[in-house]
Amino acid sequence: MSKEKVITIGLCGFGTVGQGVWKHLKRCRPDLESRLGGPIKVGAIAVRDLKKKREVKAPARLISADAMAVATDRKIDIVCELIGGTTYAKKLTLAALRAGKVVVSANKALICDHGAEIFRTARKHGGHFFFEASVAGGIPIIKALREGLVANKFPQIYGILNGTCNFILTKMEALDAPYCDILQDAKDMGYAEADEALDVQGWDTAHKAAIICWLAHGVWIGSDKMIVEGIEKITPQDFKNASALGYEIKLIAIISRDFKKNEICVRVHPTLLPAGNVVANVNGVFNGVSITGDVVGTTQYIGQGAGQDATTSAVIGDIADAVALIRNGKGLHLSEVSPSEEKQVLKLAPLENIRSCYYLRLTVRDQPGVLAKVTAVMAKHKVSIASVIQTLSESEGTASLVLTTHESDEKAMEATLSQVSRLAAVVSKPLLLRISDFTE
Amino acid sequence: MSKEKVITIGLCGFGTVGQGVWKHLKRCRPDLESRLGGPIKVGAIAVRDLKKKREVKAPARLISADAMAVATDRKIDIVCELIGGTTYAKKLTLAALRAGKVVVSANKALICDHGAEIFRTARKHGGHFFFEASVAGGIPIIKALREGLVANKFPQIYGILNGTCNFILTKMEALDAPYCDILQDAKDMGYAEADEALDVQGWDTAHKAAIICWLAHGVWIGSDKMIVEGIEKITPQDFKNASALGYEIKLIAIISRDFKKNEICVRVHPTLLPAGNVVANVNGVFNGVSITGDVVGTTQYIGQGAGQDATTSAVIGDIADAVALIRNGKGLHLSEVSPSEEKQVLKLAPLENIRSCYYLRLTVRDQPGVLAKVTAVMAKHKVSIASVIQTLSESEGTASLVLTTHESDEKAMEATLSQVSRLAAVVSKPLLLRISDFTE
Repeated sequence: MSKEKVITIGLCGFGTVGQGVWKHLKRCRPDLESRLGGPIKVGAIAVRDLKKKREVKAPARLISADAMAVATDRKIDIVCELIGGTTYAKKLTLAALRAGKVVVSANKALICDHGAEIFRTARKHGGHFFFEASVAGGIPIIKALREGLVANKFPQIYGILNGTCNFILTKMEALDAPYCDILQDAKDMGYAEADEALDVQGWDTAHKAAIICWLAHGVWIGSDKMIVEGIEKITPQDFKNASALGYEIKLIAIISRDFKKNEICVRVHPTLLPAGNVVANVNGVFNGVSITGDVVGTTQYIGQGAGQDATTSAVIGDIADAVALIRNGKGLHLSEVSPSEEKQVLKLAPLENIRSCYYLRLTVRDQPGVLAKVTAVMAKHKVSIASVIQTLSESEGTASLVLTTHESDEKAMEATLSQVSRLAAVVSKPLLLRISDFTE
Repeated sequence: MSKEKVITIGLCGFGTVGQGVWKHLKRCRPDLESRLGGPIKVGAIAVRDLKKKREVKAPARLISADAMAVATDRKIDIVCELIGGTTYAKKLTLAALRAGKVVVSANKALICDHGAEIFRTARKHGGHFFFEASVAGGIPIIKALREGLVANKFPQIYGILNGTCNFILTKMEALDAPYCDILQDAKDMGYAEADEALDVQGWDTAHKAAIICWLAHGVWIGSDKMIVEGIEKITPQDFKNASALGYEIKLIAIISRDFKKNEICVRVHPTLLPAGNVVANVNGVFNGVSITGDVVGTTQYIGQGAGQDATTSAVIGDIADAVALIRNGKGLHLSEVSPSEEKQVLKLAPLENIRSCYYLRLTVRDQPGVLAKVTAVMAKHKVSIASVIQTLSESEGTASLVLTTHESDEKAMEATLSQVSRLAAVVSKPLLLRISDFTE
C-alpha cells in the first residue's frame, strides 16, 4: 500500500463528540499527518437531522443523513460511530467491521451489550474496533491495560468511572446538601442527563466495569452478574459519619480476581475509601482508576471522564492508532486477553467469598433497648461490630444509628440487613455501604 | 511474513532488569503468544561476566559474553539493551538499528545524550527504538504521551520522576531527620546508589525531563539548558515551614511551553507544591506525573518509578509492541512530534520569563535591623514579600528567617539572592526554593 494514500474518516453522528472530533482534527491534522507519514481527511459526515443548527460547521458537501451509507462506503477507511444507542449503532458497527474497516466508538452501552459479537465479527472479517473513549474519557486507560501493562495479570482494579456521580457526591459533601438538590444543580449545569437513572443508579459505571473486566480478564460479565448499587440513598450525614471514621464516600467499580481460586468479582457500589487513598481524593467530574498488576504493582490514573474535549482526545487517539494500523497493511494488532482459554475456567465469586467491612446506617426509635436488639441480630450472623455512632435524627423521636463492622461477608450482611429491617424499632429502610481498606 | 515465524529476543545485559525480563517473560509467554498471534522466544543472552552467580538462572546454551554479537545476530529480531552506560550501549544500539532491528531500552542517560542520533539512525535504516521503561518505570507514560494523547499539545507537564529523591524527602519529613541520615538509610535499603550524585542532584530527573520534552515538543533540551537543582540543602525545618504555609516539598521536573511566544522551559528543582495537589501527595519511591493537554485537560499518572518489577513490566510492554510491529511487516509506527518543523521555531524561555513565587530561607545573626536589611534588598529588586516566619536557629545567636514572595522572576531572585548572601548578618548560604501554584 502506498504511503501516499489518503486515509479517509467517516463521522457517523455529529453531536457533541462528533463536532469535537471535527473541530480538533482540523486543528491537529498537519501534526498528525506528519507523525503518521501521510495524509488523512474526513470524507463524510452523517447527521440525524440535516436541518439542525450546529455550533460547529462542516462543509455541506460532506454531510448526509445516511449513516449506514457512510459506514459501508468503500472510500471510508475509519468509521467513527458517535451515534449512541445500541440498535442502529450495532447494525452500523457490524456492517463496517464486515467490510474490514476500523470502527472507533465511545459507546460503552453498545460494547457491553454486544461486545462479544462485535469483536468476533471484527476478527472474522479483518476489521478492528477501538474504544478508548468508552471508559474514563480522556485518560488512555484502555491503552494502558491492553498494551502498556501487557506483562501483568490484574488481581485488582477499582476506580471512579462516572463523573456525574462523583460531581454529586463531591458537592453533597462540600455543601452539606441533600442528594435531590445537588442532582438538580448537576442537571442545570449539564453534568447530568435529564433522565439521570443510568448514571446515579450505577449502570453507566457497571458498563465501564464490564469493559475493564473484559480487557483485564477476557470475559464478559453482564451487569446482572454484578452487585450494582447507586448513590441515591446517601445523605449529607453519611459524609459526616464517614469523615469522623476517616473515610470518603465514592461510587466505585471494583473488578477483582482471585487467581488461586480463579474466581472473579465485579461490583459497583458507594464505598467508604480511606481518606488518604488517591482515588478517595479524586473530586468533581474527574475519574480516577487504580490498577494493581502482579508485575508492575499499583499504578493510578486520574483525569476528566467525560465531556466533549476529553472524549474527543480519546477518539482522535484511536483514529491515529487506526491510521497507523491501516498504513501497516491491516496487520495484526495486539488482541485481547486470550478469550477462549479464560472463559472456560473463570468462575464468578460466590457471595460469601466477597468479604469487606461494612457501614450500616439505621433510623431507629429513640427508646431503650434498640441497640441491644440490633446488635443481637448482628451477633447471630457472626457480624462483629467495630464502632457505633449514635446521633439525633432530623425527625423527632428517632435517632440515627451507624454501626461499622469488622470484616464479614455479603451473605451474612444480607441476612443481617433483612432481619434488622424487620425490627419494629427500625423506622426506615437501612442503608448498607461497604468499607474498603484500599490504601493505594 | 508468515504468522508462524518465531520472533526472537536478545537480552543484552543480565543484571537486575535483564533477569526480571527473563523471569516474567517466561511466565507470561503463553498469554503473550496467544495475544500476539504467534510464537516468541528469548534466543540469546549476553552477560558481562560469564562466571558471576545470578539469582535467576537461564539455560547455558543461550548465554555468551558478546553483546555486540547478540545485537547484530541475524536471528535476533528484538534487542533489549539492558547494559547501561552510554558508550558501549550506544555502539550496540546503533548497530542493531542499522540492521533494521527493534531496540528496547530503559537507558535514559543514553537517550538523553544520543537520542537525536539514535532516532535518526532508526528512521534511516527502518529500525525502531522503544523506551517506555526509561521514564516513570512501570507507568506507561510514554505510550500515553505518544499515542493516547496524540490529539494534544502540552502547555504543561510536571512531576516526580526520581523515586530515590522522593523516598528521601518523604522520610525526612516523616521522621524529622536530616538529609544525611536518610540518605544513608536509603543506601542501606538499596533505594540509593553508592554514588548518589546522579539522583540527589537532580540529573536523573533532568534526563527524564529531556525525554518527556522531546516526546511532547520534538526538541532535545540538554541539561545544560535547564535549571537543575537537587535536594541536598533541604532541612527538616524546611518541611515544617512549608507545612505551616500549606505546602509539601517535592523534587519535580517542569516542562512548560508558551505556545504564543513559542518558548519552552525545562527545569528540575525542589518545589513547594500546594498540600492538596495530587503530585504533592505521591510519597516514598513512587513517581507521579501531571500532564496538561490542550484538548484533554489534565491527566495524572502515579506508580512505582523504578525497581526490577516495574521496569520489567515496561520492557515487556515494549517487547509486545515490537512483536506486533514486526508481525505487521515492519511498517510505519507513529513517529515522534514532527522534529524538523518544531526545532527551528522553538526558543528557550529567557530567565525573566520564568515566573514563580519563592521561598527564601536565611540563617541570620539574631540582632536588630537584619530583617530591615534583607527586605530592603528585596524591595530594590521589586520582589514583594508574602509572608515572614522567624524561628530560633539551632546554633546560638542566630535565627532562621523564612520569607515567601509574591510572583517574581528568576532574574530578580538571582540578583536578590546574590546581594542577600553578601550581607554581614547572613551567616550561611541562603536556600531559595520555588513555590508552585499547581492545583492539578
